[in-house]
Amino acid sequence: MTNEKNNFLTLKKLGIDTYKEAVLYMRKDCHVCASEGFEAHSRVKVTCHQQSIIATLNMVSSNLLEKGKAGLSEYAWNLLDAREGDKITVSHAKHVTSLSYVRSKIYGHTLSNNELKEIVQDITAGKYSDIHLSSFLTACAGHRMNNQEIADLTNAMVDTGEKLSWEAKIVVDKHSVGGLPGNRTTPIIVSIVAAFGLTIPKTSSRAITSPAGTADTMEVLAPVKLDLAKIKNVVRQEHGCIVWGGAISLSPADDTMIGVERALNIDSEAQLVASVLSKKIAAGSTHVIIDMPVGPTAKIRTPQAAKQIKSHLESIGKKLGITVKVIFGDGTQPIGRGIGPALEARDVLSVLQNDSSAPKDLRDRAIKLSGNIFAFSPKIDEAEGIKIATELLDSGKAWRKFKNICEAQGGMRKIPKAPYIHDYLSTQAGMVISMDNRRISLIAKLAGAPHDKAAGIDLHVSLGSKVKKNEILFTIHAQSPGELKYALDHLKEENYLIEIEEE
Amino acid sequence: MTNEKNNFLTLKKLGIDTYKEAVLYMRKDCHVCASEGFEAHSRVKVTCHQQSIIATLNMVSSNLLEKGKAGLSEYAWNLLDAREGDKITVSHAKHVTSLSYVRSKIYGHTLSNNELKEIVQDITAGKYSDIHLSSFLTACAGHRMNNQEIADLTNAMVDTGEKLSWEAKIVVDKHSVGGLPGNRTTPIIVSIVAAFGLTIPKTSSRAITSPAGTADTMEVLAPVKLDLAKIKNVVRQEHGCIVWGGAISLSPADDTMIGVERALNIDSEAQLVASVLSKKIAAGSTHVIIDMPVGPTAKIRTPQAAKQIKSHLESIGKKLGITVKVIFGDGTQPIGRGIGPALEARDVLSVLQNDSSAPKDLRDRAIKLSGNIFAFSPKIDEAEGIKIATELLDSGKAWRKFKNICEAQGGMRKIPKAPYIHDYLSTQAGMVISMDNRRISLIAKLAGAPHDKAAGIDLHVSLGSKVKKNEILFTIHAQSPGELKYALDHLKEENYLIEIEEE
Repeated sequence: MTNEKNNFLTLKKLGIDTYKEAVLYMRKDCHVCASEGFEAHSRVKVTCHQQSIIATLNMVSSNLLEKGKAGLSEYAWNLLDAREGDKITVSHAKHVTSLSYVRSKIYGHTLSNNELKEIVQDITAGKYSDIHLSSFLTACAGHRMNNQEIADLTNAMVDTGEKLSWEAKIVVDKHSVGGLPGNRTTPIIVSIVAAFGLTIPKTSSRAITSPAGTADTMEVLAPVKLDLAKIKNVVRQEHGCIVWGGAISLSPADDTMIGVERALNIDSEAQLVASVLSKKIAAGSTHVIIDMPVGPTAKIRTPQAAKQIKSHLESIGKKLGITVKVIFGDGTQPIGRGIGPALEARDVLSVLQNDSSAPKDLRDRAIKLSGNIFAFSPKIDEAEGIKIATELLDSGKAWRKFKNICEAQGGMRKIPKAPYIHDYLSTQAGMVISMDNRRISLIAKLAGAPHDKAAGIDLHVSLGSKVKKNEILFTIHAQSPGELKYALDHLKEENYLIEIEEE
Repeated sequence: MTNEKNNFLTLKKLGIDTYKEAVLYMRKDCHVCASEGFEAHSRVKVTCHQQSIIATLNMVSSNLLEKGKAGLSEYAWNLLDAREGDKITVSHAKHVTSLSYVRSKIYGHTLSNNELKEIVQDITAGKYSDIHLSSFLTACAGHRMNNQEIADLTNAMVDTGEKLSWEAKIVVDKHSVGGLPGNRTTPIIVSIVAAFGLTIPKTSSRAITSPAGTADTMEVLAPVKLDLAKIKNVVRQEHGCIVWGGAISLSPADDTMIGVERALNIDSEAQLVASVLSKKIAAGSTHVIIDMPVGPTAKIRTPQAAKQIKSHLESIGKKLGITVKVIFGDGTQPIGRGIGPALEARDVLSVLQNDSSAPKDLRDRAIKLSGNIFAFSPKIDEAEGIKIATELLDSGKAWRKFKNICEAQGGMRKIPKAPYIHDYLSTQAGMVISMDNRRISLIAKLAGAPHDKAAGIDLHVSLGSKVKKNEILFTIHAQSPGELKYALDHLKEENYLIEIEEE
């Protein structure tokens, strides 16, 4: 559109991380700004190496940028594969056609398969600003998408990313609708299920807002950053793996939308369903068990909400040709004892090794979910599945499988210990009547988790525990005295991590 | 919430203009980031001089910021009244309660007066990120607000800003629902109406996306940046003024929302009504005439949309105690000849001076709108009002009033002329059958308007004009040869500015 020849700008690396928003930084007095009539907030087309993206313009009035220079946010920098000193041209962004579909959704229209496809393609290509993403997500929330739309959205999300395929006809998978600290059943389930001989190629995420993601915890025990070829080798050899999914681009639109959803804090059922199912379908799964803890401080807070999402996940899964089963669970308190990568890894090993001190809730939940995976077979009912899972765990077969998977992924590691610990004592005698998942997570993060693998919280009590005055309620683990102090300072103000009632 | 004593950061001025989004820039390896567990996109509370705002976090991984330093977007910098070297503390942003009302709106609930008040207060205080604003605007669009909600929203917007009051009982005002280049009736209407003796204290805006706002055009003829005391003096003396509204903070939430609405390109009737009415009520107006051009490339594109918005504006105005009258007008082509501050000012003067070359459409429209203002009186009908307006214009009384207003505002100025002009010729003979308002505006902006006051486009034809081959269609005016060339280069690609059909 513009006479681009005279309008080169030279890229300078500013290293500004705006999460998933493409931002262009230009001098206010830049000749291109003046002649194009750009304003702060304008949407502009940035071209570099004959590749183009759309970005939001931020104007710079300081000497952050010299004349003739421009900067990009890290997201935009990576989208364009830019290097310091690269030349770019900037022009008015062309109209993004799919935004008119978003507007039609705002006005209550149903989106067609093709419209959803175009929207998701444009999101993946970075053509939507955070403002546009927020509008799309809001317009689709509040039960404004029907099942067909959710299914089409899911398919569109699958189609814009990589897709995995496996040799086995039955490929099982497990997902947890987060929010519960310490809920680290995945390594145990994969070991049990793979020991049975089913294929379970599990890709997990790192923590986004929690003190540990499954990938963070597993990384304490073995390498998890494997490329696709290596993942396929591990699965061929062991039937299962527990790797970080970030190395493969499954449903990339989901990653872009999640950041905005988090900022909005809306639990849009359509997005939740499309997010979970698109990742699983792209991963090549045929049967998926979904762990859904329900509790006042978990992600799903009420039984009604849980039932509705279960029904959506299962019916839309069916529509898309995969079998989905949602298993509710207690979400009123953390699972296991440790919160933080290393402390959770310790709990996982204690269950796999049938240690007498192993947290029973973690073991029971892993067995229940594994048993339900076995019950995907028409020949096995839930009770029978649970029996099989228990035997595989008790016999040590699951533990051997886990060791083999770790070896196949690059070798088993020793769990690190935090050098600074502090016991937090009860100030009164009584019974534990409530535990706040969100606050427990926050303190674990302040102590350094998941960045410091050994940092976190080790719980000594659970709901219903009777405690004496000065009994240890939990131990904080930290990598540095500063972080330990930081968590402790915070604790002075956060009174109700664990609530105790006098008897 | 945090132990803030150890967590000071020192402000460095980065001068990044993000429009109306508060952004905090922090080093990724900053001790506060690490200990607080901040991520890019986190909402954080920034405190400076015991004043706090909420900002979105951008992480910096380059040496843009030295250790111990932090930066702010210009909007945040101004909100905090910050200076280079000021100390700030940063902590997790507390939950913004009113966001739960936004979520309830997403789920279809009606917002109460108090809820809307809290939302607007939080928006004005900068507690909403662009993502939140977009969600709020989307949730209210698509006819999802009833009349009571729109009225409450309007009142809340009025209450969060300054309010003007005048001695006169009747205070008239005029507003134009934009989108039509050259539609510069305001200075003419104010002169006619003030000459009649009615009070018309007109505050106007500068261009946001157009080649000239009324304040830009008026500034060519007289100073417009007056403080409230001076504005009151002018109005006391002359009954009218034509000043820039930006010096007074009327309905500040509106300014914040407009940026996001523009990015979304949604014509939410609720927002349009609240935006227009809140500014007018805050300005102390009792009777408002609204000019609404309708046409395929104007802001309001169809008669149906126009009728609906007219009905909303008038009925909600009534609810809020002000009299509103919407006058439709032809929006199929620009008004007058000049597009750009100086060229439009020339047209305004030619009408006021009864110059034989004065654009008839501009004169007729100014008379029609003024006549309708007079017809607010129960004793005057529209025909009578138009007669009065015509007489005030023809007799030179309006022109004298305009000169007096200019003098009172600081002295009349001489219109500048652009040093570089280029006549654009018709490549064929025929009749003008369409004119594209949006493209005409774009070319005027590329030529330098409104930044260069003398820049813009001077039209020589209008719809229905018969032209010969090589006849001048329009003249481009520019301040520099570079900008002239820039507009011309662009013209090569924008074919249908003016469409001519062979006869």
